[in-house]
Amino acid sequence: MAGSKFAYVKKFELPDILLPSTFMVFRLDGHSFHRFSDEHGFVKPNDLRALQLMDHAAKSLMEEYKDIGLAFGESDEYSFLLRKSTALYNRRQAKIVSTLTSLFTSCYVFHWPRYFPDVPLRYPPSFDGRIVLYPSQQEVRDYFAWRQADTHINNLYNTAFWALVQQGGLTTTDAHAVLRGTVSKDKHEILFSRFGVNYDKLDPQYRKGSVFVRVKTAEESVDELSIRNDVASTQADVSGEALKQKKKGKVATQLELLHCDIIRDEFWKKYDHILKD
Amino acid sequence: MAGSKFAYVKKFELPDILLPSTFMVFRLDGHSFHRFSDEHGFVKPNDLRALQLMDHAAKSLMEEYKDIGLAFGESDEYSFLLRKSTALYNRRQAKIVSTLTSLFTSCYVFHWPRYFPDVPLRYPPSFDGRIVLYPSQQEVRDYFAWRQADTHINNLYNTAFWALVQQGGLTTTDAHAVLRGTVSKDKHEILFSRFGVNYDKLDPQYRKGSVFVRVKTAEESVDELSIRNDVASTQADVSGEALKQKKKGKVATQLELLHCDIIRDEFWKKYDHILKD
Amino acid sequence: MAGSKFAYVKKFELPDILLPSTFMVFRLDGHSFHRFSDEHGFVKPNDLRALQLMDHAAKSLMEEYKDIGLAFGESDEYSFLLRKSTALYNRRQAKIVSTLTSLFTSCYVFHWPRYFPDVPLRYPPSFDGRIVLYPSQQEVRDYFAWRQADTHINNLYNTAFWALVQQGGLTTTDAHAVLRGTVSKDKHEILFSRFGVNYDKLDPQYRKGSVFVRVKTAEESVDELSIRNDVASTQADVSGEALKQKKKGKVATQLELLHCDIIRDEFWKKYDHILKD
Amino acid sequence: MAGSKFAYVKKFELPDILLPSTFMVFRLDGHSFHRFSDEHGFVKPNDLRALQLMDHAAKSLMEEYKDIGLAFGESDEYSFLLRKSTALYNRRQAKIVSTLTSLFTSCYVFHWPRYFPDVPLRYPPSFDGRIVLYPSQQEVRDYFAWRQADTHINNLYNTAFWALVQQGGLTTTDAHAVLRGTVSKDKHEILFSRFGVNYDKLDPQYRKGSVFVRVKTAEESVDELSIRNDVASTQADVSGEALKQKKKGKVATQLELLHCDIIRDEFWKKYDHILKD
Repeated sequence: MAGSKFAYVKKFELPDILLPSTFMVFRLDGHSFHRFSDEHGFVKPNDLRALQLMDHAAKSLMEEYKDIGLAFGESDEYSFLLRKSTALYNRRQAKIVSTLTSLFTSCYVFHWPRYFPDVPLRYPPSFDGRIVLYPSQQEVRDYFAWRQADTHINNLYNTAFWALVQQGGLTTTDAHAVLRGTVSKDKHEILFSRFGVNYDKLDPQYRKGSVFVRVKTAEESVDELSIRNDVASTQADVSGEALKQKKKGKVATQLELLHCDIIRDEFWKKYDHILKD
Repeated sequence: MAGSKFAYVKKFELPDILLPSTFMVFRLDGHSFHRFSDEHGFVKPNDLRALQLMDHAAKSLMEEYKDIGLAFGESDEYSFLLRKSTALYNRRQAKIVSTLTSLFTSCYVFHWPRYFPDVPLRYPPSFDGRIVLYPSQQEVRDYFAWRQADTHINNLYNTAFWALVQQGGLTTTDAHAVLRGTVSKDKHEILFSRFGVNYDKLDPQYRKGSVFVRVKTAEESVDELSIRNDVASTQADVSGEALKQKKKGKVATQLELLHCDIIRDEFWKKYDHILKD
Repeated sequence: MAGSKFAYVKKFELPDILLPSTFMVFRLDGHSFHRFSDEHGFVKPNDLRALQLMDHAAKSLMEEYKDIGLAFGESDEYSFLLRKSTALYNRRQAKIVSTLTSLFTSCYVFHWPRYFPDVPLRYPPSFDGRIVLYPSQQEVRDYFAWRQADTHINNLYNTAFWALVQQGGLTTTDAHAVLRGTVSKDKHEILFSRFGVNYDKLDPQYRKGSVFVRVKTAEESVDELSIRNDVASTQADVSGEALKQKKKGKVATQLELLHCDIIRDEFWKKYDHILKD
Repeated sequence: MAGSKFAYVKKFELPDILLPSTFMVFRLDGHSFHRFSDEHGFVKPNDLRALQLMDHAAKSLMEEYKDIGLAFGESDEYSFLLRKSTALYNRRQAKIVSTLTSLFTSCYVFHWPRYFPDVPLRYPPSFDGRIVLYPSQQEVRDYFAWRQADTHINNLYNTAFWALVQQGGLTTTDAHAVLRGTVSKDKHEILFSRFGVNYDKLDPQYRKGSVFVRVKTAEESVDELSIRNDVASTQADVSGEALKQKKKGKVATQLELLHCDIIRDEFWKKYDHILKD
């Protein structure tokens, strides 16, 4: 056969299996999104349209990959938790990383016009992805706590920064100078005393990021719930997958979009199935 | 600092550096493209629009990543050769695989309407990617020969198959039955005697796949060439990057799209810089 | 400097860090020990001298590497559990695997004359080693259960086999034929009815393998214990390290050699510190 | 079967195949040999017995593993080159690293009394090992050049240092102070003017290290050569394997021990088969 004398080159593709029974966190980050957000006129410090587009892409990924039970997003990044026993693509690293990054990217471009109807995409955006393994539940909790603590720090800074620039009339250089060395309390104070902004009253999506949780749907009320969900889905927060799953005889699940604290125990007690297998 | 007690989770992200001074081949494959091509009415056995869209995305990738000197595409797959000394993302595997897959996907969705103006995308397509390392030039040549031999085998089969179905009126089951056990010569004969098709006269893009080669542009004629290229670029086969590069003081290069044999020596002699560093 | 133009070759040595906070099991196997045991006249089915030499080498390894809390040996293999937080050699895989294999081998050859005073080593024996990572306590328990179940199966077979050969006068071929298809109960019966051997009364070292557990020594009684240990150490089962450690201000530990069941809960309850960090 | 419910733990042992068609360099280093050499009274700056023992162990390794074509040793380290197509242990990294380190260690302890008849081993020495992959011949040459340049630098320093201490009566602190900041020429001068030592006349084993090359034996003269080799083998420099191999119908090879320059072209031209496959 024509190709057979060359087929030896396949042997150079080595196995890259991820350790079994270990949680996988898959994280995406926007590639050069500083420039991308400038070129597309993202509102500062937070562009609701851009965040909702990220959420939409994340939700699509979770609808496609049922082994993702939890996701957390902020700014131009998103993290996804795959259950520790997942056999997705036989746990091959490059296959998982590339396919998930690809689908997320594709959804982002595909759904762009829905969230930016008046802003045509000027060029194709891209993301990078990685997988990090965590052996235990505690590390998974701490990973997500780490991301949400990051959200808090970044958003408080950015909110104060852009208030100084947009409302305070400072140059960006001056705004950075004002904030240099300040602690959290100082930034709250600047926002409140200079601009009348109570940071804790701002939209929790900005302060807490976005959390998608997969929850089981009680079997007897699937149809009802689905209908309610469809009504509620104007903010892209509930999937229509429950019904489909019921027909397939699988456990019906749906995705809830939250903007809540995921650092303290409360969240993990309420959704304690996330870390179980 | 709020996040610091959680920052230990970063330590779980382990280095994944690819062996230095080794050729990288990055290959993309369409994910579930059998279904995707059906849903979007791809012409059988070859859809020129779909192939040109793949070529466009491949070219965009090469324009962005100058360390890619050669690419080969067929059907829903594309392979890219990165020069062996590339320091792209410090040779971190997940970063390279995910970013390149992401950008290709993004270009594919972004440019879709240009090639399928009357066929709206029904859902976001995705690709998987992988990197295979090759230590020597011979293995790189054999890798690309392997892919082109595959193109030949698949396309000859598909051309005969769809002739039997579309022109011969056979069911797909019967068409497969007719071809079972046939060798290359038999398929040529079926095409010629039953359908008057001289396989060797078919569009070389279908028979040979698409080859992108990065070539240096003679510095003194950059402007002229660029202009000619712009004129010639109606088929998206020549990049406008030459001019930009000249301004930056780098070596000007441009991308040539070919549909030629890459198994025999001729190609590799003509473009002998590809395998050099 | 003379060497500097060549020093780039160091870059080809890539990091091979093992996932943090994950149990490591390091296992050694004798290389071609079938031949080795024949050439050195090992008693069949069990050679007490050879097993005690293996135990001695294992104990030396645990004395040198305090992060090993448990070991299990049978025949020509030994498994060692490193605590999940160990930072030994910064968790570099090749460093750990090679150094531990080397020290075990060295101890084996070094102490050979003590256990085989009349049998000079005819050639240098070798071992291979590997590390397997386990994310959770249950998998560690199951790993050690797997090895001890293997000990049971192999030793019961070998005991019956060599009884048939040595006492029953069968050829090895015939002995294998007799045992083919037999289950555990059948082999017990053969041993008891034909040779008057109650398998369950045989030396537990043969039936259960060797278990080394590291236990803490109550600080106030270190000296006393150490002395008692020295007295008891004629079978190389207790280390003299307790005293040394006290002087260094570390927690004093000593090694206990057991030949007990490690499949059931009892062992793991009694020594529950093994799996903790 | 008793063990089957635990056998799932085998799945955690992941493949670790080394890239095909790539040179492997396996390097061993003595573990804590500063202390080991002190405890066993090694002569400074070079102990011929210790070097010859290292050579003996290296030669044994090459006799066992025919895919090693070249080795270079200095002080307490040794590097071995495996041909790029070697299929040893299916190119499994841990298996190769551990087995080769184990056999070398075993040979070192086993042959100790031959080289140190009056110095009993006080405790078991150990080595660590690693494998580094090199894609091309040039990198392999540069690797060995790097090690021999290191030999030169270290040995010149040590020779001058110990001359200052042993013959010059300096303390080690003062000797280091004298040499601080000196270049190669200065150290030659110190040796010559103060101690009448012409460094370039010292035993090449000290200045150049040890080089083992595997060479083919002309088939018709195997016996003759073997005999000559046996005569010459008083320094353990030629193996008796040639004859054995002839009987097996394989290409007969033998090992030559050299203390020559391996940085310049001459060596690689003379032994050009080393880098070929």
